[in-house]
Amino acid sequence: MNDENQRQRLAQAVAKDMYGLDEAARSLAIHIDGVGPGHARARMTVREDMLNSHRICHGGMIFTLADSAFAYACNAENKSTLATTCSISFASAAELGEELSAVAEERMRTGRTGVYDITVRAGDGRMIAVFRGNSYQVKGETVPGLKVPPPSDDA
Amino acid sequence: MNDENQRQRLAQAVAKDMYGLDEAARSLAIHIDGVGPGHARARMTVREDMLNSHRICHGGMIFTLADSAFAYACNAENKSTLATTCSISFASAAELGEELSAVAEERMRTGRTGVYDITVRAGDGRMIAVFRGNSYQVKGETVPGLKVPPPSDDA
Amino acid sequence: MNDENQRQRLAQAVAKDMYGLDEAARSLAIHIDGVGPGHARARMTVREDMLNSHRICHGGMIFTLADSAFAYACNAENKSTLATTCSISFASAAELGEELSAVAEERMRTGRTGVYDITVRAGDGRMIAVFRGNSYQVKGETVPGLKVPPPSDDA
Amino acid sequence: MNDENQRQRLAQAVAKDMYGLDEAARSLAIHIDGVGPGHARARMTVREDMLNSHRICHGGMIFTLADSAFAYACNAENKSTLATTCSISFASAAELGEELSAVAEERMRTGRTGVYDITVRAGDGRMIAVFRGNSYQVKGETVPGLKVPPPSDDA
Repeated sequence: MNDENQRQRLAQAVAKDMYGLDEAARSLAIHIDGVGPGHARARMTVREDMLNSHRICHGGMIFTLADSAFAYACNAENKSTLATTCSISFASAAELGEELSAVAEERMRTGRTGVYDITVRAGDGRMIAVFRGNSYQVKGETVPGLKVPPPSDDA
Repeated sequence: MNDENQRQRLAQAVAKDMYGLDEAARSLAIHIDGVGPGHARARMTVREDMLNSHRICHGGMIFTLADSAFAYACNAENKSTLATTCSISFASAAELGEELSAVAEERMRTGRTGVYDITVRAGDGRMIAVFRGNSYQVKGETVPGLKVPPPSDDA
Repeated sequence: MNDENQRQRLAQAVAKDMYGLDEAARSLAIHIDGVGPGHARARMTVREDMLNSHRICHGGMIFTLADSAFAYACNAENKSTLATTCSISFASAAELGEELSAVAEERMRTGRTGVYDITVRAGDGRMIAVFRGNSYQVKGETVPGLKVPPPSDDA
Repeated sequence: MNDENQRQRLAQAVAKDMYGLDEAARSLAIHIDGVGPGHARARMTVREDMLNSHRICHGGMIFTLADSAFAYACNAENKSTLATTCSISFASAAELGEELSAVAEERMRTGRTGVYDITVRAGDGRMIAVFRGNSYQVKGETVPGLKVPPPSDDA
C-alpha cells in the first residue's frame, strides 16, 4: 500500500459519488471509467437525439462528452474544481451509432489552476476532436466528507 | 423590397429547414428565433436532466445552446458552414428551471472563415457564459435547393 | 467630482506607472492611450523587425499589441491582475508601415476572473485580429502604494 | 534513403529559407532547430527588452516564441500554411536571462486544417506555457520552387 494506491482509490471514490448526481452524463448514457489522479475516460454512443441538422453528431454533444472526462479528471483529488475556459477543435464528423471515447489527461498545474487535454476518438481510432480545459480549484471538497475507502482484496 | 429583406427571408427559411432536422436541439427543447444575416438567438430552459454533479447546469448543455445559436447565425446565407474551433468561458452557474438565451453575432469574416461571438444570459440578465466560434464555409448549400420565399403580406 | 472621475484618474495613473517599467511595450514602440475603467487602447506601427518569413507582420507582434491593451485594461483598478489564457484569431495580414490599434474592453467579470475582448484594426479600418483574454486577479496592487492623483484643472 | 529521410530534408530546407526572411524571429534572437515533419523547436533567451511592467517576460514574447515553433512545424511540407486561431495558457513567470524552449508537435490534421500543440519550458524544466495553434493550408508553396536537397554524406 502506497500513496499512489491511495490517490487512485480516492479518484475512483470521487468519481463514483459524482456520477450518482450527474444527471446530464446519465441522460446521455455517458460512461466514466479509467479514472485516476489527473486522468479519466468518458464513453458515449451517438444516438438519434444527438444529431444536428447535417445528420451528424452535434458538436455540443461531443463537447459534453469531453467536458465530462475533464470534470472527472480535475476533481480526482476531491478538491472542488470548476471549468473556467474550454476550447474544442473538431476533426471529423461522428456518425449515428458510433461509440466515442474521450481521454482526459492533466497537462499543467500551477497553484489553483490547471490545464487538461482531452482527445475524442471514434471506435475506428480516427480523431473526432481535441479539447483543452482550463480549471480552477475553489474552496471545499467535490464530495464533502468523503473517506478514502480501504483497499479491496482484489485491488 | 430590397436586398436586406431578401437576406432576412433567406436566413429564416434556412433556419426553419435546419431546425426540422436538428434532433439535438429539439431533444433539449432549444428554441431558435431572432435569425437574420449573421445573427441568431437560441433559448433553453434548464431541466433536471441537464444538471451535473454540482446540481447546476452542465457546461456541455450551455455550450450546446451557444453552439446552436452559432450554427444558425453562420449558416444564414445558406452556404454550408461548419464550426472549426470554439471556446467558452463560464461566468456564473445556471440553476434548474432558469431560461437561458444565447445571442450570436458575426464578429469577423474573411474569405471562407468567420468568427462569431455568443453571449449566454439568464432570465435575470446575469451573464452565464461567453462563447467564441470559428467557422469555415465548405462547398455546397446548407439546405440544398432552397428557394428564398416571397415576402409575406405581413412581413 | 464623482466616483467615475476617480476611477478614471486611477486607471490613468496605473497605466503611467506600468508603462514606465514596460520594456517590451517600449521596445516595440507600443503607445498606450484611452485607458479607463475596464478599457484601454494600444497602438503600434509595423516595423521591418516585426516581419515574418511571408514579409507580413508576425502574429506574435500582433498578439503582443493586443495583450498590452489587455494588460492595461485589466489592471485599471490597481489590483494586480494576470493573463491566464488568451486566444487570438487572425483576419488579415498587416503590412510594413501600417499603424495598428488594439482596443480592449471588459466583457465579463466574476469574482477574481475576467474576460476582455480586444479588436485589432489597421489604419484603413480593416480588422487584423480579434483577441480574447482571460484574467485572474492575484493579491496585491499593480502599482504598490499608488495614490489617486487629485483632479487636474483641465480634466 | 527513404521517404522519411526526404521529408526530413525538405523540412530542414524549408526552415532554412524561412528563417532567412524571418526578421521578427531574428530580432528576438529566436533560434530554430529540431525541425522535421510536423514538429519544430524554437529557443529564446529572455532579454531586458522583453520584460513587462512586472519585470517578467512579456506574455507576447512567450507567444511569439511558441508561434514561431508552430510556424516552422506546420510549414515543414513546404505547403504554405497560416495560423488561424491560437490560444495560450500561462503556467509560470519567465525571468530575465532564462533560456526558454518551445517544442511544437502536430496533434491533428484533417484536409487543409491542422492543430499543433506547443509546450514552452524554462531551462530548469518547469512549464512556462502551453500553446495550441490551429493552421490552415492555403494555395502555393511556403518557399516557392524549393528543391529538396540531396542527402549529405554525414546525414
